[in-house]
Order: sequence, then structure tokens, then C-alpha cells
Amino acid sequence: MQLRWLGFRTFLQHKRSVVKLVTWVVMIIEAVVVIVRNLTHFRVTRALRPIFLVDSRYLGGVRRFLRQILQSVPPILEVLAVLFFILIIFTTLGFYLFSPNQQNPYFSTFEQGFVSLYVLLTTANFPDVMMPAYAVSRWSAAFFITFLAISLYFIMNLMLAVVFVVFSDIEKDKFRKLLVHKRKACQFAFCLLVTRSQPTHIPFRHFEGLLKFFRPNTSHRDAYLMFKALNRSESGLLSLSEFYNIYEICGFRWKTYQPPDPWFNEFPNPLRGCFYLIRRLVLWKWFDFFIYAVIIVNALALLVNTIILSSSGKPVTYDLHVTWDQIFFVVVYAVEAILKMSGLGLSCYFHSGWNVYDFIVTILSVAGIIAETFASSFFYVVILRPLRLLRLFRMRKRYRDVFQTLVILTPRIMSAIVVIIITYYFFAIIGMELFSKYDMKNCCVNTTVEQFYKYDNTTVYVDYYFLNNFDNLFIAGVTLFELTVVNNWFIIMEGYAAVTSEWSRLYFMLFYLVMMVVMSVVVAFILEAFTFRMEYNQTVQGDKDRDEENVRISIELTKEEMQFVYSSAADIPVLQQYANTLETQGVVRYEGFRRRTRVILQRRMYRDEIPGWLLEADTQCQDSPGLPNPHPATRGSVGSIRISTPAREETLQQTPPSYFGTLNPNNSTDSEINET
Amino acid sequence: MQLRWLGFRTFLQHKRSVVKLVTWVVMIIEAVVVIVRNLTHFRVTRALRPIFLVDSRYLGGVRRFLRQILQSVPPILEVLAVLFFILIIFTTLGFYLFSPNQQNPYFSTFEQGFVSLYVLLTTANFPDVMMPAYAVSRWSAAFFITFLAISLYFIMNLMLAVVFVVFSDIEKDKFRKLLVHKRKACQFAFCLLVTRSQPTHIPFRHFEGLLKFFRPNTSHRDAYLMFKALNRSESGLLSLSEFYNIYEICGFRWKTYQPPDPWFNEFPNPLRGCFYLIRRLVLWKWFDFFIYAVIIVNALALLVNTIILSSSGKPVTYDLHVTWDQIFFVVVYAVEAILKMSGLGLSCYFHSGWNVYDFIVTILSVAGIIAETFASSFFYVVILRPLRLLRLFRMRKRYRDVFQTLVILTPRIMSAIVVIIITYYFFAIIGMELFSKYDMKNCCVNTTVEQFYKYDNTTVYVDYYFLNNFDNLFIAGVTLFELTVVNNWFIIMEGYAAVTSEWSRLYFMLFYLVMMVVMSVVVAFILEAFTFRMEYNQTVQGDKDRDEENVRISIELTKEEMQFVYSSAADIPVLQQYANTLETQGVVRYEGFRRRTRVILQRRMYRDEIPGWLLEADTQCQDSPGLPNPHPATRGSVGSIRISTPAREETLQQTPPSYFGTLNPNNSTDSEINET
Repeated sequence: MQLRWLGFRTFLQHKRSVVKLVTWVVMIIEAVVVIVRNLTHFRVTRALRPIFLVDSRYLGGVRRFLRQILQSVPPILEVLAVLFFILIIFTTLGFYLFSPNQQNPYFSTFEQGFVSLYVLLTTANFPDVMMPAYAVSRWSAAFFITFLAISLYFIMNLMLAVVFVVFSDIEKDKFRKLLVHKRKACQFAFCLLVTRSQPTHIPFRHFEGLLKFFRPNTSHRDAYLMFKALNRSESGLLSLSEFYNIYEICGFRWKTYQPPDPWFNEFPNPLRGCFYLIRRLVLWKWFDFFIYAVIIVNALALLVNTIILSSSGKPVTYDLHVTWDQIFFVVVYAVEAILKMSGLGLSCYFHSGWNVYDFIVTILSVAGIIAETFASSFFYVVILRPLRLLRLFRMRKRYRDVFQTLVILTPRIMSAIVVIIITYYFFAIIGMELFSKYDMKNCCVNTTVEQFYKYDNTTVYVDYYFLNNFDNLFIAGVTLFELTVVNNWFIIMEGYAAVTSEWSRLYFMLFYLVMMVVMSVVVAFILEAFTFRMEYNQTVQGDKDRDEENVRISIELTKEEMQFVYSSAADIPVLQQYANTLETQGVVRYEGFRRRTRVILQRRMYRDEIPGWLLEADTQCQDSPGLPNPHPATRGSVGSIRISTPAREETLQQTPPSYFGTLNPNNSTDSEINET
Repeated sequence: MQLRWLGFRTFLQHKRSVVKLVTWVVMIIEAVVVIVRNLTHFRVTRALRPIFLVDSRYLGGVRRFLRQILQSVPPILEVLAVLFFILIIFTTLGFYLFSPNQQNPYFSTFEQGFVSLYVLLTTANFPDVMMPAYAVSRWSAAFFITFLAISLYFIMNLMLAVVFVVFSDIEKDKFRKLLVHKRKACQFAFCLLVTRSQPTHIPFRHFEGLLKFFRPNTSHRDAYLMFKALNRSESGLLSLSEFYNIYEICGFRWKTYQPPDPWFNEFPNPLRGCFYLIRRLVLWKWFDFFIYAVIIVNALALLVNTIILSSSGKPVTYDLHVTWDQIFFVVVYAVEAILKMSGLGLSCYFHSGWNVYDFIVTILSVAGIIAETFASSFFYVVILRPLRLLRLFRMRKRYRDVFQTLVILTPRIMSAIVVIIITYYFFAIIGMELFSKYDMKNCCVNTTVEQFYKYDNTTVYVDYYFLNNFDNLFIAGVTLFELTVVNNWFIIMEGYAAVTSEWSRLYFMLFYLVMMVVMSVVVAFILEAFTFRMEYNQTVQGDKDRDEENVRISIELTKEEMQFVYSSAADIPVLQQYANTLETQGVVRYEGFRRRTRVILQRRMYRDEIPGWLLEADTQCQDSPGLPNPHPATRGSVGSIRISTPAREETLQQTPPSYFGTLNPNNSTDSEINET
């Protein structure tokens, strides 16, 4: 279908589709072979399945992350080339220095020396690889210290720096391109929306017509609020410079302004006074301190209990009784939650993520206390309680930023995790095909890793390394995680090298290289996100209002405007609902909110550089024919461009721009200014 | 003496002196105690000796590095607080989850669990600590993966990001402060140098008088060249804005311009033609490629020889014969060096660091070949040869930058190394006092680390961990390096915990924390340096001339100026030497060079922000009375400020500003411009 839709030429130019096609052909061939041979065989093509998954509509973020990894690969390869060169040099040197020593198993052959130094790159075998040589001559330490200083401390950091710079550049460039692209789109749209009679401004009807295509779900009211928010000159007609902000304004969600009165304001007096006192208590600053104190005492009690239990030497049993202190703490938390809910109102209480967390943990604790009297499986809930102490860190601005940054990053962290899982899946399938038929128990006799796989009744401490195998997807995943953490990864590698063949090392070495690249990008991504955030904070320092302004807009509608917004017959009850407010205040106030995203921060961060980028966009625009020219001298010609879709043209043409003009008294003044 | 010189008040305000005083008092007390008791005892104050070393005049860079580490400590401590909190939570949870399993030695008590998870933070015990729990339930892997994901991949990176941002800010702020400070110093100096008759400009004689104090070694000629380089308006008098560049210009070293003619230009013709051919051959681009090809073949031959030797299974012996291929390669390298030296001239050849390296390695190789025929100890020189292949990486711009950045960073890398050595010394002394009396051979029976310390004839592979001790400063240093690399560090810690007491763990844990802070700063420093360099390259992209301009200035002197510069009787032979050049070209050309330092790059990098910073300096200047006002309207009053030192005033007053005026024909024109 895709081939049919795109045509053969375009299809072949679309890399992703070609990759999918090739994978599909390979899989078909394999399926045919399986059917013909009627035998199970080495099936690695299953590892390619994630390609189809990644191509889905919902994994755009994952594709973006993969693209960034691929873009970071060339500079990483350059650094890797240097690394391998140094590795070879040191292997040669190490072979001549240490192989005469028969007691040294790490440099017995050239290949063995290479593997030892490759593992040493990850520090996984560090003092061990040095010890036999060190026992012979103390000066051999210099060889290993030099190697580690060059490869680990210098080149690895250089690699991180390279990835970090490439990553920051890609981020900035992406933002710049998007910005220029949006600016151009605005110019195109603007020239389609202006009429012959008003070639430099667009009226509300045309604007709403655009929104019908761009955001079909936008209500009449929201469209008007957006229009008014955009129209800072209050002329009733949007100029091009005002229209440029349309992408910004589309991110806002609108609702009626809620005065900060408490929810119980309408209650009869004795009850209201009571709630009012609760509210004051809850908002009192010492109230929170008291709760924190209780949590700290709870945590300390838990800690002391655990240490006493631990030092008593008795084995921990699961049939712990419900003690009175446990009940006391849970009651305090429950009372706190009830007070806060009644004092602040449910909507306000659950607005804060921390309160939601508190509420869930409290409910679980109560359930746990009840369950504990019958069964003890719910006991672990008490552990969750001290996690609330993390709230203490909110007091420091740095940690507030960390939490906020985390929230902003969530979608991208998810993408990173999906990429890691896909990489794991790919290697797990190959690992299962290659290694799942081997039993590692008591393997590798007479190798350096023999002791790790030993399993009999004589050994005191079993190392259980035979559990790190590739029996199924879950266990293979855990094994690959151990390889990712890198420590002692060579024991798993050596084990399989001894059981299968020397060449199986390639699998483990390759996995290390791939994960190094992926993890470098992940680390660079976290570094970049936090350094960006901290630099942003320095930019807006002491300018908190401007920061707040980015995510909140307030618009007031007069009675006439309300009637215009709710003009259809169905809206009459809504209008009646606001009649009281209109009577007393003359206006209805709406507020627009949007979430603080990275793009918003970037807009503020690069505000010095943005005009330069946009100038570029405008200049390019001037060169290509048929685009609106931003310079007023030639602006008259813009109106002559016709809209290509007939249905759209009709919608826009039939709206009388004069209607809106009567509504807004400023309009006549503004058009006069434009004419002069 | 310092106390006498500074006075008691100032002395106490100077932190470094107070620290030294306290250390000194402690040492004196200890010395008295030792003399009185007449017994050796626990002497940790020796660990404090580096304090006196660091306070020396030559270790300013080390003090700066230490200051940066101390400045990074507060944010690091905050992150560490979160880390320890999470550690305690997971320890409690781990204790309840895993202590019922008697087979699990890692969580048997609360303390044991804490130590296990602390070590897990460094990944040093990774799969091992999980295996007993993993053998019981596969789901326990979730506990460890969660812990590592949070602590290792998230919080550790956050820490690096925090240190990195703090570090970058400190760097930028230091540069800004220095710049503003220098600007103010320039303003002060300028107002001391102007005279009543010329209140807005300073003549050469006054400028030279300043240099006599600022750089007493500056020659008359260099002073004049600097003056002429500063005086861009060529008016013969320096304005304030021209004078601002004095710090820049003082960094230049001056010498007569050497025309790019080869050194053999004066030779008689048949010889000259011969050298000219050699020069063309050496500068021919394929010549270098040929040499690279030889090096690659040499490296491959070495590699193949090594692999053949390795796979032959024969033990490597040191009595290798001199083979013909070795002689061939060494002869090729020697011929190359001789050709290059004769073609380019010695000064030009040794100008490049790579050529110096080539030369030394070639000399060593020749010596090695000769020595090998008698003894084989010089054989390792051949290994150095392939390192020349690193030159291949010069072809990529990225690596050229890496090398250049390394050169710029050298003094600061030295400071970092000194700081690390001092930290090692401190901990090594304490470690020697605490642990040197224990013999670790066959220690720790019935602990998890028993096998690592075992040493008898029955074991096949000895682990030699008993060599990682604190017997002397050198061995203690190697042991501490192993603790720095972190892998398997817990084996050393557990060994001493078993031999001495549980509390000795504090020493190892503290060392890890200190090294983590130091290494974070070192890593942040390397990251910062390279990202700065890469961003700088993007700033000057395609602007190579401007970059070059920063480090090279060309000044021409006429005959009159030469006579002025070499006016004393002793200089007559020098003047005669240039007579020929003056005759033919009319001028003598001088060139100024300076090394590319970080400050120069910073000036270019922050060129958008510098005017803002300097504006601040100028504004502050205006407020304080008695300073030159940069605004021309009130500039007339500047001349009234008198110089306080009488001797200096005399020197400056007796120079007739008119003398210089006659020398430079532009002066009259310029003063006219100034008057209008």
C-alpha cells in the first residue's frame, strides 16, 4: 500500500521504507526456508522485528532519539579509532613485557593480551590483571596506570565531550530549523488568509476558518480568546507580526478564571467558619514543618527498629505484629490528608503531585495496617513512607528545578528507555539463539573464571554466575543489564568463550561498544538537559514574572463579546450562567494555561539569537516568488495570491470582515493608521 | 615574619596563613610529645605537610584548582545528601527483603546491607551482590536494577551536570572579573600618565616610563614596537581606547621578520640547486604519504611478527636478533630526518613538536639497533615507532584541535595532577600509619574475600591481593590508585575490615567520596575545556584569518624610527646591520608572536558579552572620584590628578612630548582632528 501510495521513486528515496522492505524480504525468505526444511534453525531475523515497531505512528520520539544516536556515531567512531590504536600499541608492548612470565595468564598470547586490555578499558578486571606482573616487578604498575590514565580518564572523557557538543548542537539546530519553518508557514498562511480589501491584516472570521483546518476541535469561544490574545494592538485585525505567535497561542488551554476563594465560601456560617479555621491551619507554615517532623520521627523509628532487629541476630520473620507506634503514625497521616482535603478543596488538593502521592501512600498504609492483622504481605508499604522525605528537598531551588526538568524530560526519557529496550531485545534474541543451549553450571574448569561457576555442596559462598545465561527473554535481559553495568562482565564473556568458542567474545565486545554509544548519548542527553535548565535559570534570574508569563495568559471578555462568542441558540444557558458575573464585574475573565515545555524555555534562552535566525527566514522568503513580502513597500501585491482549495476559499470569502469591525471600536483607528 | 609584615589583624583575615599557623602549632605540639615520650606513635600530622608545599609561590595554579574544588563542594554535598537518603531507604527495604535468606551474606545485617549498597553505588560488586537473591527469586533483580538506574545513571550524572555548570560559571566569572579589573587598572594608569597639556592622550616617553615599572626587562625597541602596535590611529599619541589593549600587547614577543626564503639561499649555485631539490622533495605532499606508508608497513610488520611469535607457543625470550627489516626501517627514518633537516633548515625543522619527537625516536632506534647487537635491553624503542601514526590523526581537524587544546591545558592539567598527588599523599600517610603493620597474606579466612588473599602452592591462579597494602609510600600510592579506579576496591576494604576492625571501612569510604569529588571536578574540567574549544571553533568557523590575527602582529619601522629606537652609542653596530635592508626596502619589518592561551580564546568567544561587562566597569568608574571619566564632555578635568611618587613624576615630566611629535608626521593632523 505504501509503495502504491508513494510511487516507486519516492518509496526508494524513503530510507525507512527501504529498510523495512529489505527486512520483510529477508523474513519471507527465512519463513520459506523453514517451511521447506521443516527444521528449527538459527533464527536471528527475529531480532529485526523492532524495526516494524519503531516505524509506528506513536514512536516518533523513539525515531528521533535513534536519529540522534546515528548522528553522534561518526565523531564517536573517530575517537574509537584512536582508542583501538592505543589498545593495539599497548597490547604489543604488554605482550613483550609480560608474556615471559609463565605465571601471568593475562598476557600469555597476543589475543589474550588484547582481550585483557579491552576488558581493562572498562576497568572490570583492574587490579587482577595487574597483580601477576606487579608481584614480579613493582614498576609494571606504571604500564597499567599509564594505560588507564590515557584511555579511561582522557579518551573516554573526550568521547563524552564530543557526544555532548554534537548533541547540544543538534538540539539547537533542530530548534532553529523548527522556528524558521514555522515562521515560513505563518507567512504562507497569512497570505492565504488576507483579502483584497484588507491585504495587510486578517479578520477574525478568516482566523477561525484557519483553525477549523489546523485544530478542528477548537470551540468558537476558544478561537475568539486566541484571536484576542494574539491581537495585542487591540485593532480587531491581526497583522503579520501578531499572527506569527499562532503556534505559541495554540498550546494554551482556556478556562473561566476561578477566583481564589475557598470552595466552602457558599456554606452557611458556623460550618464556613469551621472550614475557614481548618484552611488557615493547613496553610500555616508550621503545619507542614510539624508533618515533616512526624515523618522524620517515623523514619528514624523505622531505622532504629530495623537496626535493633538486625543486631539482635534473630532471623527476620514476616509475622511482625502491628505495633502501636505504627498505628499512631498512620492515624496522623490520615488526619493530615483529611484536613488538607477539607481545607483546600479536592481539586486544589489533587492538583499537586506530591499530595496525590501522599494520598495513595496513606490509603495503602491504612490498608496495610488492616491487612497486617490478618496477613503480613502488605508490610512493605511502610517503607514507602520515608520516600515522602524527598519533599524536604523541595525547599532548595535546585531540587525544584531538578523535579521540573524531570517532568519536562519524561517523554524523551521514555524514548530513551524504549531505545535501550529495543537494543536489549535485539541482542537478547541473538544471545538466546547462540547460547541458550549451554548449561553453565560447573563449567569452565581450569580457566580463570572457574570459581564463579562452581556449584556443589562444598563451597561456602556460591557465586551463582551460572544464572547469568540466555534461557529466556527475561533472564537474557537481566544478563544484558549486568553487561551494561560493565562490572565483572568479562566473567560472563570468559564463561561462554570457554564453553562455546573464542569467537563468542565478539558478541560481548560488540554489545559493550553498542551500549557505550547508546549510554554516551543518554548521559549526554541528561547532562545537556540539566545544564540547559541551570543556564536557563541564570538567564531568567530574578525575572520570575517573565517566566510565569510564558505559561499563563489572562483575557477579559465584555458583554458584547460574550454574546458574540455564545451566539448560537444552544449556548443561551451558558450565557445565562455568566449573567451574574457580567452584571457585577462588567467582564468575564478567562485564563489560558500551557505546560512548560522545552521549546518555551528554548525560546527564552536563545532570545538574543532568534532575530538573526528569523531574518534569514524572511530573506529567503523574499527570494522565492509567490510568498508574502514582509516589507510594507511591496505588501499590496500579497492579496492577489489565490487559495487553491475551492471549498476553503468559499468559507473564507463569505465572511464579512465588516461585522467584526463594528464590534471592536478600535478598528477604525487602526485602519486609519495603516492607511497613513 | 609574615605576621610581622602583615600585622595581626590582616594575618588573621588571611585564611591560608591561619590554616598554616594552626598546622604548625599542631606539629610543634606533636614534636614535643614525641620528644617527651621518646616513643614512635600514631603520626598523622605528616599528612598535613602538603599545606606548606601548596602555599609556595610556584603553585598558584594548584591553589586555584583547589579553590575550584572547594567551590564545587556545596552543590555536590546537596546531591550527596539525596544519594545517601536513597541509600538508607534501599538498605532498609533490602534488609527486610533479603535478610530472611540465610544464604545471602550481603544483607545479613543492616550495616552489612548498607556497605553492600554503598559498594554497589560504585558497581564494584555488581552481579555478585544480586546473585544470592536472584537465585531465590528472579524478581529480586528489579530491586537492584531500580537502585542502579536511580543512583548510578541518574544521580551520578546529575552530580556531573551540577559540577560542570558550576565549573563553567566559575571560569566565565573569573574571566569577566579579570577583564573588568584590567580595564579599571588601565583607566587608573592612563590618568597617571597624561599631562596637563595633553589631558586625553599619552606620548611615547610616558608609555615607556610605565613599562619600566610594569615590565622592567622591556628593551627600548620592544617598547616602541608595542607603542606603535597599540597606536592604531597612527597619531603618535595613545588615546584611552588604544591604551586599553596594553595587556594584550604585553604578551607579544618581537623579532625581525624573517623572509620565507630557505636557509641555503646564500650558498653557491650547484649546492643551492641541490638543496632546493631536496626542499621541494620534502615539501612534496606525496613525500609525507610515503613516510606514513612506511610507518604503517612497519607497524603491520611488528604486529604480524608479534602475532606469529605469540601463536608459535614458544616463550618470548629477550635475545632477539637484529633482523634486516628492522635495519631497513630505521635507515628509512634516518634518511627522512636528514633530508628534512637539510631541506627545511634546523630551526624550521625543530619548530614542530612532531619533528622533535621523530628525531628523538630515530636517534633512539639507531642506538637501539647498535645496542641490540651487544645487549637486547634497548629493544622496546621499536614500540615507540607506531606511536608516530598518531600523526595520521592530524589530518582531521578535530584531532588537531584536541592536540592544541591539550597544549593550552598543560599547565592546568599539571595543577590537577599535583592536587591528585597531594590527596594521595594525605591518604597514603594515614593509611601507612593505620594499616602498614598488618600482613595480608592468607588473611580473612571465612569471609567472602578469602580467596583473593590466599597464597599457597595448591592454588592454580594466585590473586596476589595481599600485595595491595600500605607498606611504603609507593605501594600505598598504587593501592590508592586501585581504589580510585574503583573496580574491586571493596576486596581491599573488606580485607582490612576483617584484619583490623569494621571502622577501617570509614577510611576507604571517605577516600572514595573525596576522590569522587576530585575526579568529578577533573572530568568537568576536561569536559569544559573541550566543549569550550569546540564551541570556539564554531564561532570562528571560516574565519581563520581573524583567528591567526590574534597571535601575530606585523609592524614596519622607517629609517628615522630605527634611528630613534637604536639611539644610544652601543646600538650603532645593530643599526649598521639593518642598513642594507633599509636601503633596499625603506623599512625594517618586525613581527610579534604570542602563544594561543585560553584567555585569548575567551576574548573572542565572549565578544558579544564583553561590551556589557566593560560598560559596568566604566559606570563604576564614573561614580568614584578622582578617576578618568571616559566621556569626552568632562575629560578636561582628568589632567589635574597628580602622581604620588615623586621619582616617577620626575621621570614622566621631563620627557618633552614635542619630540615624538616631530618624528611622526601624522601627529599634527591628528591633533587638529582632536581640536575640531
